[in-house]
Amino acid sequence: MERVEESANKVEEEVGKVVEQARELHESGTSLISRISNEEQSLRQKANSLESSIRRLRSLLSQKLLDPKLSEKLEEDLQRARCIMTDGNAAAFLPAKAQGRFLRMFLGPINVRASRKDVQLKVKEEYNSYKDRTAFLFLLFPLTLLILRSWIWEGCLPAFPVQLYQAWLLFLYTGLALRENILGANGSDIRSWWIYHHYCAMVMALVSLTMEIKGQPNCAQKQRGVELFLQWAMMQGVAMLLQNRYQRQRLYTRIALGKANRMDVVWGETAGVDGQLWVLCPVLFLMQGFEAYVGLLLLKTAFVGVDSEWQVIFCGVLFVLMAVGNFINTVQTLMTKSRFKAKMKRTKSKQ
Amino acid sequence: MERVEESANKVEEEVGKVVEQARELHESGTSLISRISNEEQSLRQKANSLESSIRRLRSLLSQKLLDPKLSEKLEEDLQRARCIMTDGNAAAFLPAKAQGRFLRMFLGPINVRASRKDVQLKVKEEYNSYKDRTAFLFLLFPLTLLILRSWIWEGCLPAFPVQLYQAWLLFLYTGLALRENILGANGSDIRSWWIYHHYCAMVMALVSLTMEIKGQPNCAQKQRGVELFLQWAMMQGVAMLLQNRYQRQRLYTRIALGKANRMDVVWGETAGVDGQLWVLCPVLFLMQGFEAYVGLLLLKTAFVGVDSEWQVIFCGVLFVLMAVGNFINTVQTLMTKSRFKAKMKRTKSKQ
Repeated sequence: MERVEESANKVEEEVGKVVEQARELHESGTSLISRISNEEQSLRQKANSLESSIRRLRSLLSQKLLDPKLSEKLEEDLQRARCIMTDGNAAAFLPAKAQGRFLRMFLGPINVRASRKDVQLKVKEEYNSYKDRTAFLFLLFPLTLLILRSWIWEGCLPAFPVQLYQAWLLFLYTGLALRENILGANGSDIRSWWIYHHYCAMVMALVSLTMEIKGQPNCAQKQRGVELFLQWAMMQGVAMLLQNRYQRQRLYTRIALGKANRMDVVWGETAGVDGQLWVLCPVLFLMQGFEAYVGLLLLKTAFVGVDSEWQVIFCGVLFVLMAVGNFINTVQTLMTKSRFKAKMKRTKSKQ
Repeated sequence: MERVEESANKVEEEVGKVVEQARELHESGTSLISRISNEEQSLRQKANSLESSIRRLRSLLSQKLLDPKLSEKLEEDLQRARCIMTDGNAAAFLPAKAQGRFLRMFLGPINVRASRKDVQLKVKEEYNSYKDRTAFLFLLFPLTLLILRSWIWEGCLPAFPVQLYQAWLLFLYTGLALRENILGANGSDIRSWWIYHHYCAMVMALVSLTMEIKGQPNCAQKQRGVELFLQWAMMQGVAMLLQNRYQRQRLYTRIALGKANRMDVVWGETAGVDGQLWVLCPVLFLMQGFEAYVGLLLLKTAFVGVDSEWQVIFCGVLFVLMAVGNFINTVQTLMTKSRFKAKMKRTKSKQ
């Protein structure tokens, strides 16, 4: 009896200790959180004032009051300071870009910004490898459909595999758009067109899901649009694989040169490493041309043939718009690139 | 000339200072981050060891070696300690639940866990208000379709508005599943069935998008499945509105009693505040019965009628499965509830 009571006392004591410890832990947690937020606040203020100094000095230099040589050197110094800030551990304390409507719509108001640079880089790395994996599928999926079509399905695609493919596209583009928005919130300067481009592709995948996949008779004629789309998707897959390789190389080169924020993303129809540009550019322009051609052909079948569903017209218009947008953005990127190169040359020849 | 040189010197000096400050900022950032992670590490260890102490003491108490009255008191103390930890600011240092595959698939490996309790609660609040808004739309959307059907469309729904509704459902369920996964990562103990339930609903919305909405002749007969679905969705909307109100009340009551982690979510067909349970339960069971009925009817039309698309069979099976799952989970919740109540009564009568 005495021993039972003794152990009861002991257990009671231990429980009391545990409750006490839980309280202490709660208090240390509270104090740590408040200390962190104070220190962060002060670093945030410093980062803000430093940023405005850089901006002020830059506008001063742009007034061309100084000797051009000195001015150029100082500009480079400021660029370096900016890189140290945005690329180093101070980046977490710079004011966050507002998270867009798209993320809020799907996720609610959660914070997707990593506070540590190495975590941000992990996100970026994963995005790159995700793109690689999907580019491979992007090539393989339509290829399989087209091969099976001529080998097994005798020139007439059944509805289910095509719809499966369309559902996969919807999932893929949603995932890409979400990830790119997350990268943007983490300080990557991804061109906004490539995100809009993925919104368009999402809508198109959704609309194409509601479209009836028509069969015999005259299957080949009715499925001409689907066939063209699959061919275009294959080209797109090849182009994506090429681009991913080149962009990653270019990104690493730029990181090494200290010219780029490591969070930069150059997705879509922009260009790769210098020498390889001559391979990539024709492929890109060819693809954009083919994209517009598919769009126009869809519009033609909608207005001439019996196949006058609204989905066909909608997809046709969207295809043309995407081709035009891609073209404009590729040209703009190339122009920025050549201007940058000219500037580099000037700097070198001066030295 | 001299003044220009003087100002050049001044600008040069300022630029040098800015570069220096950027470096300093980077270093303070690095040191703050490492200090934070050290302190977090130590709190994390303490939280872990405290949790295992609680677990050990609990299993000791469950062996019934002590006086039952004392044992019950000590159990309550341990429960309190657990609440202080999980509901207070120490919660951020407890080991995070692994983020599920679903989030990784859409977002990649980003961290969606808020480190501060007040931010977590904001996420929860927003989730509740999102549910309210969508419940309202959930009622309004099918209601409008059914009214327009009999007033304007003469008993035959056109394809486009139905497909728009299906696309909205797909978006809605994707958003809900993402948000619930995020809540789960933030420490909410949402029953996993309700998340699976939303995965099923996502798949069903996707499949229904690929289904042809048939028109005249015999439209009313062909669209019987769609009509039933819309009627069921309206009921679901009413039930959701009722539930949201009751669950929020219950949550606040439970928070006030200190019984619940504030991140708890009770979504789906579980029950509300005690007295109101008698209103909600019949509605819930009626709805589940109707859900199964819609499923069986879809299966009947698929096997008997001309309407033998695979989508109809698939949706029918899914409907029946969801009804059965909902029923089982509602009964389980009610059983847990009544057991809890019985225990509370015993405690009271003893006192």
